[in-house]
Amino acid sequence: MPETKVKKTEDFNEWYNEIVELADLCDKRYPIKGMNVWRPYGWTLMSHIDQLIRDEMKKTNHQEVYFPLLIPESSFKKEEEHIEGFGSEVYWITHAGVNKLEEKWLLRPTSETAMYPIFSLWIRSHADLPLKTYQIVNTFRYETKQTRAFIRVREIHFFEAHTCHVNFEDAEKQIKEDKEIAKRLFDKLCLPFIFGKRPEWDKFAGADYTISIDVLMPSFRTLQLGSIHQYRDNFSKPYDISYEAEGGKHEFCHQTTYGMSERILGALIGIHGDNKGLVMPPEVAPTQVVIIPIIFKGKEKQVLSACETLYENLIKEGLRVQVDNRNITPGNKYYTWELKGVPIRVEIGPKDVEKNEIVVVRRDTSQKKSISNKLIVKTINEELKSIAKDLYDKAKKILNDNQHRVKTVEEAKKLKGIVELPWCGKENCALEIENILDGKTLGEPIDDKNCSHPCPICGDKSITWMRYAKTY
Amino acid sequence: MPETKVKKTEDFNEWYNEIVELADLCDKRYPIKGMNVWRPYGWTLMSHIDQLIRDEMKKTNHQEVYFPLLIPESSFKKEEEHIEGFGSEVYWITHAGVNKLEEKWLLRPTSETAMYPIFSLWIRSHADLPLKTYQIVNTFRYETKQTRAFIRVREIHFFEAHTCHVNFEDAEKQIKEDKEIAKRLFDKLCLPFIFGKRPEWDKFAGADYTISIDVLMPSFRTLQLGSIHQYRDNFSKPYDISYEAEGGKHEFCHQTTYGMSERILGALIGIHGDNKGLVMPPEVAPTQVVIIPIIFKGKEKQVLSACETLYENLIKEGLRVQVDNRNITPGNKYYTWELKGVPIRVEIGPKDVEKNEIVVVRRDTSQKKSISNKLIVKTINEELKSIAKDLYDKAKKILNDNQHRVKTVEEAKKLKGIVELPWCGKENCALEIENILDGKTLGEPIDDKNCSHPCPICGDKSITWMRYAKTY
Repeated sequence: MPETKVKKTEDFNEWYNEIVELADLCDKRYPIKGMNVWRPYGWTLMSHIDQLIRDEMKKTNHQEVYFPLLIPESSFKKEEEHIEGFGSEVYWITHAGVNKLEEKWLLRPTSETAMYPIFSLWIRSHADLPLKTYQIVNTFRYETKQTRAFIRVREIHFFEAHTCHVNFEDAEKQIKEDKEIAKRLFDKLCLPFIFGKRPEWDKFAGADYTISIDVLMPSFRTLQLGSIHQYRDNFSKPYDISYEAEGGKHEFCHQTTYGMSERILGALIGIHGDNKGLVMPPEVAPTQVVIIPIIFKGKEKQVLSACETLYENLIKEGLRVQVDNRNITPGNKYYTWELKGVPIRVEIGPKDVEKNEIVVVRRDTSQKKSISNKLIVKTINEELKSIAKDLYDKAKKILNDNQHRVKTVEEAKKLKGIVELPWCGKENCALEIENILDGKTLGEPIDDKNCSHPCPICGDKSITWMRYAKTY
Repeated sequence: MPETKVKKTEDFNEWYNEIVELADLCDKRYPIKGMNVWRPYGWTLMSHIDQLIRDEMKKTNHQEVYFPLLIPESSFKKEEEHIEGFGSEVYWITHAGVNKLEEKWLLRPTSETAMYPIFSLWIRSHADLPLKTYQIVNTFRYETKQTRAFIRVREIHFFEAHTCHVNFEDAEKQIKEDKEIAKRLFDKLCLPFIFGKRPEWDKFAGADYTISIDVLMPSFRTLQLGSIHQYRDNFSKPYDISYEAEGGKHEFCHQTTYGMSERILGALIGIHGDNKGLVMPPEVAPTQVVIIPIIFKGKEKQVLSACETLYENLIKEGLRVQVDNRNITPGNKYYTWELKGVPIRVEIGPKDVEKNEIVVVRRDTSQKKSISNKLIVKTINEELKSIAKDLYDKAKKILNDNQHRVKTVEEAKKLKGIVELPWCGKENCALEIENILDGKTLGEPIDDKNCSHPCPICGDKSITWMRYAKTY
């Protein structure tokens, strides 16, 4: 049986690169670097994550749309900061068949410039607001840094919500809702995260401010899983997205966006996995329970029938279940499903059938117990909940243990993970700390940010704590 | 209230162009011709069609994958006929940021040339076969003909299944399964269709043979909704998709594909719609039942509460239901939902509440009846089934009435729709008939094709009936 050549606990980055292929999530042999093939197991997992996002969007009255992939250069160039931010990262279509296009088109890196000329047509009066839309699509960025499956790719499976509001205050309410969505969504994925307000020099091109959603990976680097942007009227002015207010006056909309990507999958793999392979949060596991018949000659029938009965009972509960009937040893079967991270394995052998018992094994803890037939469905449901809670708690403890608030750069230098230092508000001081720590400025906390200590670089009064970390 | 300027019964093509926007399916004002914006109503409808396809794929053990959109020129050029067929229809990426790419990439028009180099790596032995995969993705074709929403577009919402088999016979079994899938799928969409075997000169680039799925539109033109291709080893040889057979010998796979697109939506709109707007097949209707409270002063509470109770009861049945509480007249509400084709409208006024009755109106027939509260859920379920059956039957009758088998070109010239004429097998004779009828060769029937009459052009013995029609 193939195994990762390195252990997660020994070399996380290398383990990650191996496990994504070994567990059949993707194939990196596609002839364009950074564009990988999604294999069925990886795509199913991503689809389950997408479904959680769609559920949240439905709950909050967002409507799903689909805008074209290609954007004419002239639409793209309307917002100056935006084109500056993305201009060097886009792919250009110049020819159709043998004909040169009159105007170049680009592949969307994100869809502001595709959507906003149309929003300008859709929105007429305050009755059309708020407009809350989203799409889940492929986007493209010409990454020049080293690529990494699901984490830094050139064709990105991307979620983007775009909303328009009557004013800044209403847009702020949306951002509050977005934060609640993140909380509910990442709880289901057992991923503890932190919100941070990005520094001015690192916010989204065109945004008034940006809130990032970051997780801590086992390499002690942070990974940004999403961002929430307040645009104010920065885009609505150049794209003329305005409405007739009560009283007849024309006003520009205030806008927000919310972006997330397949990086969520990268975080799941990295944070929950272990030396044996993936560990799936039950909510999105493609298979939640795998049933392994332990066959001995002469007892096949009873065992297979017990497996079938359990399968039916679990399916009735709405669980995603599989019986592994392959003609290989139980050990090899255990290996496969451990690698793929199926949360619960059930083993049924002739002795279990005799005793009306079933063996239940948890993927996360390897804990094994015999359960009477009568209690099995209840037990499995409880174990799935318990696995989700334990995965979350374990990751939360690691995040807490590696997030430090200190007063001096000297202290910060000794620490791994995320450090918070006092900050005076000057870009230069933050950049100097980046240099010293060989890290990046993550952003300031959105709560509990008051800081009474001086800036460790210039000694001036601080305006906030500021976070630094090595990042992906 | 806005209405289509022309009636479906007067000018179908113009009606179609208007209704797609008026009913909020799409917005054609996107600045690239032939690339339209999917509005929420249109996208939801398409998602429901996609879900039916995914259900069929699951039932037949196909696995969903996702391959990159971009294909390097060198991968694309491996199969000669294929590049000849598609070369003039693809969009080329030549630059990333300000850099010129070393090798040009194209946007997939279909994914053979993206997938097959990877299939070559995935398939090693007969144990890996059959390989049955599919994806639902955006594809691109540089259409130079006039574009039409959902029917001829340049960014296409596309389904493509790709399978690999040990030999020709096993691939033929797949094609049999594909035909059964079409039957089940289009039944649910209430769309009668015909299978036809495409003539040699009009088959898919690289295929051994192509079976098309065609429907008849109210313009008496046929619209091709899908195709099933037998590739034999035409692609597996250039792409080296081979396996070790039992005994150790290396063999090339035989392959099939199955393609369908958003044209299904175009057919739904065209075939089921009427002068009042869309008519949705219940299986995919974004809203299956709309409840309209008929409010009079003083009785609001009872009416709204009756609406709410019915809503809850129907939701429990798994139906997609909406209560229209907007502050506009009932007539305006009727107009909206008729335009959008909601299969059943329910009206509840104070008198109905008193009599414990509910008014049910069918979209397709405008038939109206009062039903007692007790029977309402049962009645609605029955009516939805009845609507589906009637939509199918009505379309089937039109198809039958406009499909003719005749012996001479003179007879054929007088007929609308699909005509079948004897055919000798020579391309020139078919092309001459195309000229005379100002139509296209659709293909030969796959059943009941024996023909004892001479070819109407050259007088030679016929080998089959051949179909001709004006097409989209």
